[in-house]
Amino acid sequence: MALLVHKYGGTSMGSVERIEHVASKVAAARARGDQVVVVVSAMSGETDRLIKLAKAIDPRPVSRELDQMIATGEQVTIAMLAIALEKMGVRARSYTGAQVAIRTDRAYNKARIRHIETERLLADCNAGIVPVVAGFQGIDDDGNITTLGRGGSDTTGVALAAALKADECQIYTDVDGVYTTDPRVEPKARRLNRITFEEMLELASLGSKVLQIRSVEFAGKYKVPLRVLSTFVDGPGTLITLDEKKTESGVEEPLIAGIAFSRDEAQLTVAGVPDRPGIAAAILGPIGDANIEVDMIVQNVGADGTTDFTFTVSRGELDRAAEVSRKVAESLGAAGIRTATDICKVSLVGVGMRSHAGIAAKMFKTLAAESINIRMISTSEIKISVVVEDKYLELAVRSLHKAFDLEQAP
Amino acid sequence: MALLVHKYGGTSMGSVERIEHVASKVAAARARGDQVVVVVSAMSGETDRLIKLAKAIDPRPVSRELDQMIATGEQVTIAMLAIALEKMGVRARSYTGAQVAIRTDRAYNKARIRHIETERLLADCNAGIVPVVAGFQGIDDDGNITTLGRGGSDTTGVALAAALKADECQIYTDVDGVYTTDPRVEPKARRLNRITFEEMLELASLGSKVLQIRSVEFAGKYKVPLRVLSTFVDGPGTLITLDEKKTESGVEEPLIAGIAFSRDEAQLTVAGVPDRPGIAAAILGPIGDANIEVDMIVQNVGADGTTDFTFTVSRGELDRAAEVSRKVAESLGAAGIRTATDICKVSLVGVGMRSHAGIAAKMFKTLAAESINIRMISTSEIKISVVVEDKYLELAVRSLHKAFDLEQAP
Repeated sequence: MALLVHKYGGTSMGSVERIEHVASKVAAARARGDQVVVVVSAMSGETDRLIKLAKAIDPRPVSRELDQMIATGEQVTIAMLAIALEKMGVRARSYTGAQVAIRTDRAYNKARIRHIETERLLADCNAGIVPVVAGFQGIDDDGNITTLGRGGSDTTGVALAAALKADECQIYTDVDGVYTTDPRVEPKARRLNRITFEEMLELASLGSKVLQIRSVEFAGKYKVPLRVLSTFVDGPGTLITLDEKKTESGVEEPLIAGIAFSRDEAQLTVAGVPDRPGIAAAILGPIGDANIEVDMIVQNVGADGTTDFTFTVSRGELDRAAEVSRKVAESLGAAGIRTATDICKVSLVGVGMRSHAGIAAKMFKTLAAESINIRMISTSEIKISVVVEDKYLELAVRSLHKAFDLEQAP
Repeated sequence: MALLVHKYGGTSMGSVERIEHVASKVAAARARGDQVVVVVSAMSGETDRLIKLAKAIDPRPVSRELDQMIATGEQVTIAMLAIALEKMGVRARSYTGAQVAIRTDRAYNKARIRHIETERLLADCNAGIVPVVAGFQGIDDDGNITTLGRGGSDTTGVALAAALKADECQIYTDVDGVYTTDPRVEPKARRLNRITFEEMLELASLGSKVLQIRSVEFAGKYKVPLRVLSTFVDGPGTLITLDEKKTESGVEEPLIAGIAFSRDEAQLTVAGVPDRPGIAAAILGPIGDANIEVDMIVQNVGADGTTDFTFTVSRGELDRAAEVSRKVAESLGAAGIRTATDICKVSLVGVGMRSHAGIAAKMFKTLAAESINIRMISTSEIKISVVVEDKYLELAVRSLHKAFDLEQAP
């Protein structure tokens, strides 16, 4: 008998029929003899509807009151799921974040969980009752309702699993696991049975938005085994583990876990900058001050004592970044700035590459064979990212997927 | 400087624009120097929408979970109103029933308030903050959310006013006060400046559904001055007071406060019942056992040792009442049963009639002058009700309104 945390997202809770389906999945786990604590999101669209209502009154609503409002989305779905479970003969009881209690700091709209009371939930489990807990929300020390920010229900699930010392936190979503890459780009993409937390973080931050990054970090930190599964299709999903090197059967992990990509990239070059110490700080300081997030950074030394300094930002931030950079370029006596939005980023991710040379070379060779020009390169311990022209995105992903044998099960 | 409780119903909170209007009314009271605690209902239709969602899963949803769900309606509106007030520069803070805390028993869906914590609300008032409190809901000793049943927001308003020792509980609604009768039937109906709790109870229970009965009883019990006003039209409204005999100017109250009526009436006669002791109990016992509420009861003695026993129920209950009565009639050896639904009830209400003879005579004479036949009569200390054919309803109300000079201010 295992203690499992099931987490169901907004799509899974999107209608009465879907909530009944979720109830049947929980009932099946109970029938297998497992203890289950369920965490749910609001019905899809409900949080946005409430935010829209608040903003119709004030475009910048008081954050305490906004949290008071949007926390109702999960309060509705926990009760609906409890009703559905009870109707199926499964004893259940719903709990808001306050009722659990899930204690957070008082950073409304982006609160952090500090402590979770487990006594009541464990008592329910031992009495054969399924606690259904509202994700995304908590309560501060003064009884004010807080929310954890977008995707916060994943964080609630993981935090509850950690607090309850659950055997597994199962995140049910509309995909049946983590894939080697997006199947819409490469139909031969393969579901991974396992992936490490580090790989998952890189894949998530690079655009494979299966799980909220914070929840994966949290799961890694507290060593909570995390599994991504589909609400709608039965299957083993993908287990996200700490164990880096070995599969369950003891076979070595493949070098590359998957290929992530992002189209939301824009490139900004400050050209002809005098090549002297402190240039990077002089350019990126004002960008940081403007709260613009920079991703890749490349500096090329030129022949004439000047250098080209290039970095990428998300496309939505390009105009602001260009405005800031233009002023910096002027003050530095640079030649000017250039921008490009016809680019994308493709990344190979895998903990295996730590100990294997030659991955980068193979990647570049594969792209060269397809005549894909690489505009920027960035590497870390477990990933290699390249920026290429965006019309080559699909071709780059598919050729790399094939070159690294990702369609084959290891 | 007075301490006022403002209560706004679902219609007043029905849209962003209406909530902004409510905020402006609260702001105006603050600008006049009054301290205000606001109680609000859910947006009109929201509670029904939530109940429908719950019943789509289970026609008889677990009552604890239903309360958990429907309490979200007010949690949304308190936050919206607080946002609107803050935007207008009025400091405000929203509180759910649990946050106040409004302690109730654990009778889900129809909980009774036991105790209200006032410390936090009074501290807010003294700090110049307007507390906005969710009506209709509370919390039991185990932290479960309870609701007070239909119209419970009025009860919350009155209970808060009592606990806070407020100077007045102002119930804002879509009518601008209590009228001598329904203006849709008698356009000359006049708004009353004052009415007693007893009169209000009779008018409410007889169909003038301005306020929930329980809240009026509550206000009477705790001597909370209650005022009914319009959210949409400025005016003094109607003050509901304990003071029975004198108006503010010391002039005696009129004999009759108003005329109530109800079309939701059905008559059931068990005819030819052997006239012996215990007949009333034999007939009404099974009706009560079937949870059918009986209103008026008349027993006529016949000449042949039998009697006709007649009573009224609401129309929706007639079929069930007839079924029960038919069995009883058989077992008693009665001649049979007769039913009628083409009837209505018209009632004169006024504390003044206690000490004045002749009211009933004048009522019957007025109806006779219009050739309206009276089918049943029932009297109490402060009201006289008659059942007449329903096609005469408007005529009866208008002729009585005129006969008792109700269109004239006293």
